[in-house]
Amino acid sequence: MMARPIRILGIDPGLRRTGWGVVDIEGNTLRHVACGSHVVSDRLSLGERLVAIHDALVATVAEFRPDEAAVEATFVNVNGAATLKLGQARGIAMLVPAKAGLSVAEYAPNLVKKTIVGAGHADKTQIRVMIGVLLPKAEPQSDDAADALAIAICHAHHRKSGMLKVVAS
Amino acid sequence: MMARPIRILGIDPGLRRTGWGVVDIEGNTLRHVACGSHVVSDRLSLGERLVAIHDALVATVAEFRPDEAAVEATFVNVNGAATLKLGQARGIAMLVPAKAGLSVAEYAPNLVKKTIVGAGHADKTQIRVMIGVLLPKAEPQSDDAADALAIAICHAHHRKSGMLKVVAS
Repeated sequence: MMARPIRILGIDPGLRRTGWGVVDIEGNTLRHVACGSHVVSDRLSLGERLVAIHDALVATVAEFRPDEAAVEATFVNVNGAATLKLGQARGIAMLVPAKAGLSVAEYAPNLVKKTIVGAGHADKTQIRVMIGVLLPKAEPQSDDAADALAIAICHAHHRKSGMLKVVAS
Repeated sequence: MMARPIRILGIDPGLRRTGWGVVDIEGNTLRHVACGSHVVSDRLSLGERLVAIHDALVATVAEFRPDEAAVEATFVNVNGAATLKLGQARGIAMLVPAKAGLSVAEYAPNLVKKTIVGAGHADKTQIRVMIGVLLPKAEPQSDDAADALAIAICHAHHRKSGMLKVVAS
């Protein structure tokens, strides 16, 4: 009996840019489905920006119908105001898939990097190189889309540990 | 010509308790409409908690049909993780009224306290005493409901400066 593929949505939330990436896992094979970035004008009020992020993510969930979702658990140590802003975007990024009935996993940035690159302190270039190896058909056009794919891959690994090897497919 | 009263929803967001308070302003008179607290079980996952807060606030907006909303702009300086959590709840608290087409104002905690008590460093007891003076019919059952009324009163004052005197009604 063939198991149906599991579709995962990774989200890298931000008030200006929210990256998203969709991957399928089937057996121990990973497949790129789509990725992109929802960009919100900073001329909008905060409430309007949150609505724009919300509506864009609702459309993404409706289009790709993922089975599970994952969001990075980042916080900015520098100042409380920046962390509060990120938290607001992140609240929307968790609300939308949860409201659609999906489980929403959270991963620390170091675990995402370690899963993809093998080291917890990898930089963005290393992440993008490994995305190219793991998902050769993905061509993320922005760092946040690449980060969202990295989060989806991280979840693919950790949702059932040992079920998936990271190999180029 | 009698102006129709303006109804204001104040929200004091939190992942465990979200206070809400509704007041009407008519001319320079403030009137208490309702207040309360949406309490969310901490046994739920983060995504489920955000959905519960979202759905409860959607119901509050549908029941009271406010014209404008206001949320406190707090952040916790102690640690990034606490601020991120608060941000997540606050994102939902701003999303719901914005999605319903309301303007959503933000006020710093010191301005809220200064507007209600006359001093930026008032404690919770002083806030509750002044709520009792300004809105004698309000009997908030929790600090977060009282804080939400304080935020609504603050907005009533500052939305058109000079239009409203704080007097017991």
